[in-house]
Amino acid sequence: MTKNLALEERLLQQYDKSYEGNGILGERIAHRLSELSKIGLTADNGSNRPGFSLAEKQAKELIKTWMLKAGLSVSEDGAGNVFGRLTGKEDHLPAIMSGSHVDSVPNGGHFDGPLGVLAALEVVEAWKTNSYQPRKPFEVAIFTDEEGSRFNNGLNGSEALIGKANVEEKIELQDEEGRSFAEVLQDVGLSVQGYAEAGRQLDEIELFVEVHIEQGKRLEKEELPCGIVTGIAGPCWLEFTFDGEAGHAGNTPMNDRKDALVAASEFVMKVNQLPRQINDSAVATIGKLQVEPNGVNVIPGKVTLYVDIRDIYKETRDELVDRVLSLSSEIADTYHIQVKHEEKVRVHPVPIGEDIQQLLEQALLEHGISAYKLPSGAGHDAMILGEKIPVAMIFTQSKDGISHNPAEWSSLSDCVQTVQVLKTFVESLQHDRK
Amino acid sequence: MTKNLALEERLLQQYDKSYEGNGILGERIAHRLSELSKIGLTADNGSNRPGFSLAEKQAKELIKTWMLKAGLSVSEDGAGNVFGRLTGKEDHLPAIMSGSHVDSVPNGGHFDGPLGVLAALEVVEAWKTNSYQPRKPFEVAIFTDEEGSRFNNGLNGSEALIGKANVEEKIELQDEEGRSFAEVLQDVGLSVQGYAEAGRQLDEIELFVEVHIEQGKRLEKEELPCGIVTGIAGPCWLEFTFDGEAGHAGNTPMNDRKDALVAASEFVMKVNQLPRQINDSAVATIGKLQVEPNGVNVIPGKVTLYVDIRDIYKETRDELVDRVLSLSSEIADTYHIQVKHEEKVRVHPVPIGEDIQQLLEQALLEHGISAYKLPSGAGHDAMILGEKIPVAMIFTQSKDGISHNPAEWSSLSDCVQTVQVLKTFVESLQHDRK
Repeated sequence: MTKNLALEERLLQQYDKSYEGNGILGERIAHRLSELSKIGLTADNGSNRPGFSLAEKQAKELIKTWMLKAGLSVSEDGAGNVFGRLTGKEDHLPAIMSGSHVDSVPNGGHFDGPLGVLAALEVVEAWKTNSYQPRKPFEVAIFTDEEGSRFNNGLNGSEALIGKANVEEKIELQDEEGRSFAEVLQDVGLSVQGYAEAGRQLDEIELFVEVHIEQGKRLEKEELPCGIVTGIAGPCWLEFTFDGEAGHAGNTPMNDRKDALVAASEFVMKVNQLPRQINDSAVATIGKLQVEPNGVNVIPGKVTLYVDIRDIYKETRDELVDRVLSLSSEIADTYHIQVKHEEKVRVHPVPIGEDIQQLLEQALLEHGISAYKLPSGAGHDAMILGEKIPVAMIFTQSKDGISHNPAEWSSLSDCVQTVQVLKTFVESLQHDRK
Repeated sequence: MTKNLALEERLLQQYDKSYEGNGILGERIAHRLSELSKIGLTADNGSNRPGFSLAEKQAKELIKTWMLKAGLSVSEDGAGNVFGRLTGKEDHLPAIMSGSHVDSVPNGGHFDGPLGVLAALEVVEAWKTNSYQPRKPFEVAIFTDEEGSRFNNGLNGSEALIGKANVEEKIELQDEEGRSFAEVLQDVGLSVQGYAEAGRQLDEIELFVEVHIEQGKRLEKEELPCGIVTGIAGPCWLEFTFDGEAGHAGNTPMNDRKDALVAASEFVMKVNQLPRQINDSAVATIGKLQVEPNGVNVIPGKVTLYVDIRDIYKETRDELVDRVLSLSSEIADTYHIQVKHEEKVRVHPVPIGEDIQQLLEQALLEHGISAYKLPSGAGHDAMILGEKIPVAMIFTQSKDGISHNPAEWSSLSDCVQTVQVLKTFVESLQHDRK
């Protein structure tokens, strides 16, 4: 029904202007989200701006023009990360940095990434309107290729910033068209050498704060525009192989089977019960499962599945990983089959400091918003930066929790309220802490 | 080690000649199995003779020469089914028919099918040696395309014989190369019209008896060369779709999920427990299962799976089907998800008459073999013929239960003992039965 309207019009249709003020303008945010949405727009009205693509570059270039107009000095590093810097009154102090990314998954939405960048820029716009200059320098950041949809390997910009990128590994990457990391970088005016040297002195940055859509339903259920992220869950991905014995579905009696799928099914059911026994913020998911030979009349000989385990605390996340591993051994014993596993990913969770959460709480309360706290189950640029410097995150309500999909939606009223909170929070950081 | 030896040499290596006698020659069976194995031999030493292929035709032609040499009059119907007929002393009586098929799955073994044809032919050879003429005519049958590997649709020869083939449906079939049923038939000198008219007067046949490898491990466990089939299980195939709700594996709390795979897993586990509650011969298998979207970090939104349910008795098979359907509804309620099903196949089981089983029992005991009875979980040409006329089946021990695989194996000693039993059984049928 509203599909054919530009994003801007759709955002303004249900907008409650009463959340404006302090120099923050909903119309400007809507206009900019809409202008960005036109770059890489898909037939489904979704976004297609893969990392290191010309579309991503074009989106960055557009934002650079807005940065310059807002009085920021713009720089770009060898990874294509863009920084718009506002001089602080005491410009030698470490900067407060805020931002996110503008790349997308192949047919994604228009909020995942862009909202975080435009929220940070809107704070600068508001300060400009109010003739406010922060004591500490403030940087608006755009990180390259957060989603990793080109090489199935995300967070490439933020990893380069903190000097964590494994360039040896990256140069082996190939995209679906068979193009190498070096070729892809060259297409957008970058180079592997520049990428490798993109790291920055991290003592120049006091704290990074990222606004991002929730990509879940908790804030919607609580009817809140935004919430405080308590930590970013570090995923651990385990690949399990259940090796039973294939056989004819008709000629093998029930008591003489080693059915890999029956064993795997008990595992799936029991893994699903484990996180609740450990922590409210812990989750475990079996999203990918393959049966071999996968014939209607063949007893499954082999099942391969992946367990995605997350929590925002390392201890409980690792406890959950251990429980899942023990469970797999128990199942192997029960069914007299072989179970092997391989750890594919284990990223440190990033808990967010209590002091930072308190400042965010004050900022929310100042705008009459209940201080609801929730974990981030997904990884974000803030997760990478959080390995080296303090980070904060503010989540904005996502309609129906939908993300990575053209139907991704956050109301403009919620976006504006989030920017109000971000602005108040960044201002509260201008004093010396502790 | 023995891979490079011809099948004949491998069969003879461990052959115990003491099972010979009564005119039956192990060497002849070994030689003929070996000659057939050379037609469509794969790089893995397997068999590749799809239904309606030139390789299948070539195998039939070779057997026809043996039939003629053995004194049989050879005919072929419009489906390519071959019959070698031995005149009976009272040739107007309905015939006893025995045989199987010579087509194979793409990389199958050398016993599934050929053994049944050669066993029937060996009975004729033995009779010729002994100058024995049966009272009733005896026919050695080769049915076309039992496996159905070309069109995913088997038993085409036996269906045509009993006038059951749905020609309307068949002419819509396409093989993997996009060739139609009509084109494929034409390549081997057949026609759709000839196929449609292949049916035979079934009162010309008193009984069909099929020798086949077990394709299971029961006889191997019992250390028996062959066994009596009590019935041929009719499969019922149900396709189930579990519709839950996809979501981000990190951002959806455990208590707010509608994980289709967790629900499907409980279903898989519980379906596995049902057959034992109903009947020893009943089986239920979930061999094929697909998850959507099948991403490591996405909660499964949809699972499609197939349940293969079999028993040799219609009542208990249908009871099991009903229990599986009830279970799916219970799981849908428990998990608040949608479950739909579609019945893809429901074939009548073919129980084998008590009187026929008793005659088989006598034949086995006469050769000093314990009369072990077992169901056939797989479909066979005898299942189709069993819809219209009395049938019997004798299973020969399969090494490790392996079938549809180059490693398929039955020892020559077991094959020879099976032929002895078949011969005795057919001779016992020469009297008028009640």
